This record gives sequence, structure tokens and C-alpha cells, in this order.
Amino acid sequence: MAYIVTPVTVVQLPGLNTLGISLARIDFAPNGLNPPHTHPRATEILTVLEGTLYVGFVTSNSNDGNKLFTKVLNKGDVFVFPVGLIHFQFNIGHTNVVAIAALSSQNPGVITIANAVFGSKPPISDYVLAKAFQVDKKVIDYLQSQFWMDNN
Amino acid sequence: MAYIVTPVTVVQLPGLNTLGISLARIDFAPNGLNPPHTHPRATEILTVLEGTLYVGFVTSNSNDGNKLFTKVLNKGDVFVFPVGLIHFQFNIGHTNVVAIAALSSQNPGVITIANAVFGSKPPISDYVLAKAFQVDKKVIDYLQSQFWMDNN
Amino acid sequence: MAYIVTPVTVVQLPGLNTLGISLARIDFAPNGLNPPHTHPRATEILTVLEGTLYVGFVTSNSNDGNKLFTKVLNKGDVFVFPVGLIHFQFNIGHTNVVAIAALSSQNPGVITIANAVFGSKPPISDYVLAKAFQVDKKVIDYLQSQFWMDNN
Amino acid sequence: MAYIVTPVTVVQLPGLNTLGISLARIDFAPNGLNPPHTHPRATEILTVLEGTLYVGFVTSNSNDGNKLFTKVLNKGDVFVFPVGLIHFQFNIGHTNVVAIAALSSQNPGVITIANAVFGSKPPISDYVLAKAFQVDKKVIDYLQSQFWMDNN
Amino acid sequence: MAYIVTPVTVVQLPGLNTLGISLARIDFAPNGLNPPHTHPRATEILTVLEGTLYVGFVTSNSNDGNKLFTKVLNKGDVFVFPVGLIHFQFNIGHTNVVAIAALSSQNPGVITIANAVFGSKPPISDYVLAKAFQVDKKVIDYLQSQFWMDNN
Amino acid sequence: MAYIVTPVTVVQLPGLNTLGISLARIDFAPNGLNPPHTHPRATEILTVLEGTLYVGFVTSNSNDGNKLFTKVLNKGDVFVFPVGLIHFQFNIGHTNVVAIAALSSQNPGVITIANAVFGSKPPISDYVLAKAFQVDKKVIDYLQSQFWMDNN
Repeated sequence: MAYIVTPVTVVQLPGLNTLGISLARIDFAPNGLNPPHTHPRATEILTVLEGTLYVGFVTSNSNDGNKLFTKVLNKGDVFVFPVGLIHFQFNIGHTNVVAIAALSSQNPGVITIANAVFGSKPPISDYVLAKAFQVDKKVIDYLQSQFWMDNN
Repeated sequence: MAYIVTPVTVVQLPGLNTLGISLARIDFAPNGLNPPHTHPRATEILTVLEGTLYVGFVTSNSNDGNKLFTKVLNKGDVFVFPVGLIHFQFNIGHTNVVAIAALSSQNPGVITIANAVFGSKPPISDYVLAKAFQVDKKVIDYLQSQFWMDNN
Repeated sequence: MAYIVTPVTVVQLPGLNTLGISLARIDFAPNGLNPPHTHPRATEILTVLEGTLYVGFVTSNSNDGNKLFTKVLNKGDVFVFPVGLIHFQFNIGHTNVVAIAALSSQNPGVITIANAVFGSKPPISDYVLAKAFQVDKKVIDYLQSQFWMDNN
Repeated sequence: MAYIVTPVTVVQLPGLNTLGISLARIDFAPNGLNPPHTHPRATEILTVLEGTLYVGFVTSNSNDGNKLFTKVLNKGDVFVFPVGLIHFQFNIGHTNVVAIAALSSQNPGVITIANAVFGSKPPISDYVLAKAFQVDKKVIDYLQSQFWMDNN
Repeated sequence: MAYIVTPVTVVQLPGLNTLGISLARIDFAPNGLNPPHTHPRATEILTVLEGTLYVGFVTSNSNDGNKLFTKVLNKGDVFVFPVGLIHFQFNIGHTNVVAIAALSSQNPGVITIANAVFGSKPPISDYVLAKAFQVDKKVIDYLQSQFWMDNN
Repeated sequence: MAYIVTPVTVVQLPGLNTLGISLARIDFAPNGLNPPHTHPRATEILTVLEGTLYVGFVTSNSNDGNKLFTKVLNKGDVFVFPVGLIHFQFNIGHTNVVAIAALSSQNPGVITIANAVFGSKPPISDYVLAKAFQVDKKVIDYLQSQFWMDNN
């Protein structure tokens, strides 16, 4: 997907232990997408250093449904993704994007939604997913096949 | 989907403010599914009081991918869903299921994955989702249409 | 006293470590009493699943003294006992009671007041307790003797 | 009971708000007793500045019952009472005692056991207390009468 | 001193409230110094995006005294300053430096040591400072005069 | 400097581990100074037991600069030093002072400013300090020499 995340968490830098913070540098080629994901244990602040990035997050369930908030960020702009919410970042410019993510945990974790839902090992029952996504099992099987191949 | 969640969080019981805990009773009809979701701010302990429930959660990203852990719970069994991880519960028995969920926050939040990803308002760009799920935009449009209708 | 507590804390379920929550199922025979006690490290939410339970807690010291709050709970009712306060639960119905307690710590602890004050090993000096309870030492000795026997 | 507690919590010193700590000076006449009590939200460190103090605390329930730990403290000695445990302090010398208590909360709270159990308003049912303390209701009524008078 | 700090804390971005994190972009001209300072409520992770930066921090008191740790950071390098420790950053290259600081609090605070000690309003007694720095009061008066002028 | 700090932290009393509090007794001879210092991980409450103490702290940076707050404390007076701020205590009476400091961490740490800035091992570059304190390098060298000798 033409993006590279260089994390600096307690895994890479043991001295972060007990200090409650970590960081990642993210490089995006043009058209590069950091696909919808969540950090189960951290809020994220993103700063764009170079290029133009389209970002968004979806709120948790409420009476009004799940709302999408998006924004186009240019060099020097800053955006916040609250803890646990699903969010994405997409390079919509013609040049590379460099961004810095600061995370409010030394061990924030990341869950890429598509991979966790359709590409887990072993896979989630297609019967369960068909009910959840309100589609035929064939559609689920097709979606899951994208990630099975991916893992070879 | 034939399940009912009766939450007791700080929204329903203001006296929970600052006390750091909440609770939900979940009733499932046979074949009832609590679809894949996360709680952005809480770990969950689930106890089955009546019936038979198939439950699972998917770990966050790692070198081995996202692992699925599942278990069949009978009356009196207990299971833990760690904070922020995607999980589901499915009544695989012929009788109703009653379960109690305890959550480690007075305001745990809930994000139903299918609704947040394919049913947000406004919708996430199908171009972004097509890249994320590695399928054609038509498949995304079809998935999104299930939740647009749902919101009428 | 005709009640059984089945706890699920970090002692029984090591995976609760760092997750900040635990749970107990409490079964009461008719006339069963969970006697006055405190949890030194947790708030408790109690849900009654079957039967009728009379519950109460006493507030901490204030200018108005220590106030008692009580309530009769029926099936489906919920009650909160704030961290560290003395509370009790009593089955006042003719049928068994089943209740679920959720606790805001993986290691909540429990202190049964009567046992801790009159039945500790070694016992607290009866001179100290006579002053504290403003009665003759003979009354204290009698109270202590109930718990010494209990420990044989 | 010939002792005076001079607290410095967020009630007396609003600037302590969010700072997570408080303090009390305790003066004991000879034979003065700070009767068994708990702080629902704080650990306590006690330092004796003058005199001789006999102190103790009782552990929470365990397989071995509730253990009493006691110590005689002289000028300059220090002792720790862990959060939520029942403890007391008694001047066993012939001179006044001055002690400083540091507490790990700006709002620690205090529950004097005898008053909360036998002197609450309204009183806890003597039927409940008779079962809890394993004595006849007459003994409970006698104990409660000490604190009813106290409140006139 | 030829450096500019552009902070993004709860003061600039109210949405950071309760999220426990903040950020600053720091631009240094050649020879620019971010002088010795502390953040009373945050650990800092610094990432160098352009240029060459000499950084250091001093440990808290120990039997071995206060140890200085320093490092020269180039583009892409990362360094951690633990909460409350005195640290500094100095551009030792011939080009501008751009760096991103992530801080483990939405409201980290900053105390520039020279200004707080020698330039407070009103000034700290020169008698006190002369004893603390083990020099004559004239030296202290001279140091203080640098910061009095600075404040005109 | 004619003062003695007797700390009771997790280093001296391992039982304080996880309890989040510590304590120190401070004895000052007449003219004794506890020089400007910070606790990187704790708020401090100080109680004067004997004598007369002049205390002060400096606020963190703000648009109005760094403000100094001071007060003369007599026997029984109490003062609070918020976490991470630079503060000092000075015996301005003709008799000894005894004071008790309560700290909101089992491991508060202490940084004596003069020693950390001018006496670290190895020393901070005098070029950096000359820029920071806005004086000639000779003044810095003189200040540093006080602490080099001190360490022989």
C-alpha cells in the first residue's frame, strides 16, 4: 500500500518502560494509504511534516450512528485520533508525505480492521461474519480470500 | 440480530461517576449474534448465566498476524476480552442465553465494526475502503448499501 | 450463613493481571446473609439475577454521622457499593438468590468486619476494643469468643 | 477518647485538589485511643514525634483468617497502614503523643468501625448484626445503645 | 537564542483534554539553544527531522552525584527525556534543525531553570541563592541582573 | 548547609511498594537551607513541628514569567509544593526547625538545582551554560568550580 511505519515503542526502545508514551514516523508514497485501524491503548496526535494527507476517524456507536470526521492536512497541520477509535490516513497529493504520530502509551498496539476481521488465523466463521455484515456468505468468503492469499 | 444489551454505565446510573466500572446484561435468542465490536476504553469479563455461547476475540497485529481465540461457554463459564480488541458472542444453542458483562470503565464505549466501517455517516470513501479490503469498489458499494438501508 | 461466593479475580484467573477488573457470583439460600464487609481496593456493582435481596451500605464519617442506605432488590435490579464502604446483602425472600458482583480491581480484597475486629489472630486487645465500642470488657470477651470457637 | 485529629485534606486546603496527598496531625493524651477505623481511599504513613504509641492493623480475609500486626512506636519511628485495612493507635505511655499521618489521597475518608456498624443512622437491623456477629440480638441492642446515646 | 517552540497542548487544542498527550515542533537556527529546562508533568520523546542536534539530560540526585548523559542526534534519530529531569538541546550543525517533541501529558508545563532560579518575580533572596550556589552574593546579583534586564 | 533529611521512601521501607506515598523528616540548624530543588515525581506537603521556616516555590513558565511564592511558617503551619516545581526551605529563626514532608509517590526523587546544573559528572558544556544564563563563560567556570571542589 506504499506506506512505511517506523515505530518507536517500548519494543524498539526498552527505556520507554513506565514512561507512558511512544512515537512513529510514517512515510507515504503518492496514493499511499494507512488503512482503517485502531490503537487499543493510545490516543494519537499526528503532525504532517511534508505533503498533503487526507485523514478521518469514525466515532463510537451513538443514537445518531457512527459519524465520520475527515480533514485534509498540509505541512505543519496537526490532528488527534482519540483512543480506540477507527481511523485512516491517505496521501492525496502528488508528492511523498512524512508524518509523525505521538501515542499516549509506551505500548499502544495496532489493529488493522480488514486484516483482523477477514484475515485472522484461524478465520472467523463466515456464518458469523455474514450475519454481522448482513451479506451472503459468498461475499464474506471472497473478502476472506484476499487476506488468505496475502499471508502466503 | 435477536440480542438485547441492557447497559448500566454512567449514562444510565450517574452515581458511577469516578467509580471506574460498569455492567451490561445481554440476552440472546437462539442464533442471536453480538457482532464483532470493540470497547475503546474497557476490558470486559463475561459470565454466562443460562445457555450456550460461542465467543471469540482477535489479537492485535503481530509478526504472526492477527490470531483468533474462541471458546464455547456454558452456564457458569467466564471469559475475558482485553481492552480494545475486536470480539463477538454467538448463541449456538437451542435456548436463550443470559450473560453479564462487567467492564473496567464507567464509560466504556462500543464500536460495532461493520457499522463503523461500512455504515458511518457520511460514508468512508469507497476508494479508501477498496484499497483497505483489497477488493473492487463494487464490493465495497454493495457492503455499504446494506447499512445505508439499515439507517432508513 | 448459607451463602456462597464464587470469585473470579486475578487469583483464580491470572489473565486478569493489569486488566483492572474482577467478578463474583454470589448464591444465597433463604435467610442467607453476606455479613457487613468492605473491599479495600474496589467499587462493586451488584446485579440480582434471581430472588429478592435486601442490601445496604454505611457512609464514611461526616458531621451528620454515618448514614445507612438500604434497598430491596428484585430480579434485574442493580446497586452500587462505593470503594471501601461497609456493606451487606441479605436474602429476605423464600427462594434462592443469585447475584453477580463486578469489582473495579483485579485484586479487590475483602474484609469481613466481625471477623477482622473480633476474630483476628492474635486477637485485638480487649482493653482497646472495650474503649472503642464503649462497653465493658466482658462484652468484648463474649464477642471474641464467638470467633475463637469458629476457628477451631 | 482523649485524642484530637487535625486533618489537612482538600476540605481544609482546596489547593490540594488533583495533587493526590493529604496529612493529619494526631495528638493523644495518655490512654488516648484512635479506635479501629479504615481510610477507604488512602494508604497512611504514621510518624511519632513525641511519646510512645501502640499501633496495629488487621489483614484482609485469607485462608489463615485475619492476622493482627502490632508494634510499639517511640519518637522517630514510622509505620505504614495499607489502603482500606482496619487499624488503631493507642497511647500506652505516661506522656502525650504527637504523630503525623501522611495519606495517599487528597480526600482519604475515614470510617470508624464501631460507629459505622453500631451507630449508623438509621441503625443496621439488629437481626442482620446478630447473624453477622453470631450473638443474641440483646447483645447487639446493647452495643447499639452505646452509640445512640452518644449521638444525643 | 534562535529557537522557536510551537506547542500543541490542551491550551492550543482543547480537544486534547483527558487524552493525556501533547506535542511540540521545535525549530533551531544554527547555534540555537533550548536551554536547560524541565517538564514537571511529562516524559518527552524527541525526533530530529532535519539537521544535527546535541542533547543531554542530568539524572536526579544519587550517591554518585548527578550524571550527565549526552548524544549527538542526526536526521531520524530519537531520544527520551524522563519526566522531571533537567535537559537541553543545542544545534551544533551549520543548518537549521527541525525536531518534534511528544510529551506524555496534555498539559506538560515547562520550567526554564535559569529564568526560574535567577529571573523569578519577585527574585529569590540573593542570600538564599548565594548559599545554594556556594558563591558570593555579588555573583548571584550579577546573574540575576541578566534576567531583570531581559524582562524589560 | 546545616540541614539533615531523613527520608522514608521505598528505598528505606520496601513495604511502600505500590502504596504511592513516602515521607521525610527534615531537621534544620539555625540558618540551615534546603537549597532550591524539585521532586520529579511527587507533590510535597510540609508541616513545621518546631521553629520558624521561610519557604518558597517558583511557578512554571507563563506569559507573566516565573512567579515566586513565599511564606514564613511557624509551628503547626502547613505548606504545599506542587509536583515538579522548584522550591526551597530556610531556617530564619534562632532555634532548630523540625519539619515533616509527605510526598505523593513511594519513589519521589530529588534534583538539587545547583548541583545538577553546575556540578554534574561530566559537567555540562560551559558554552551551553553561558548561553543559558546569559553570562560570560568565566562566570560559569567559577560556578562549576564550587561543585567540582565539593566532590573531592
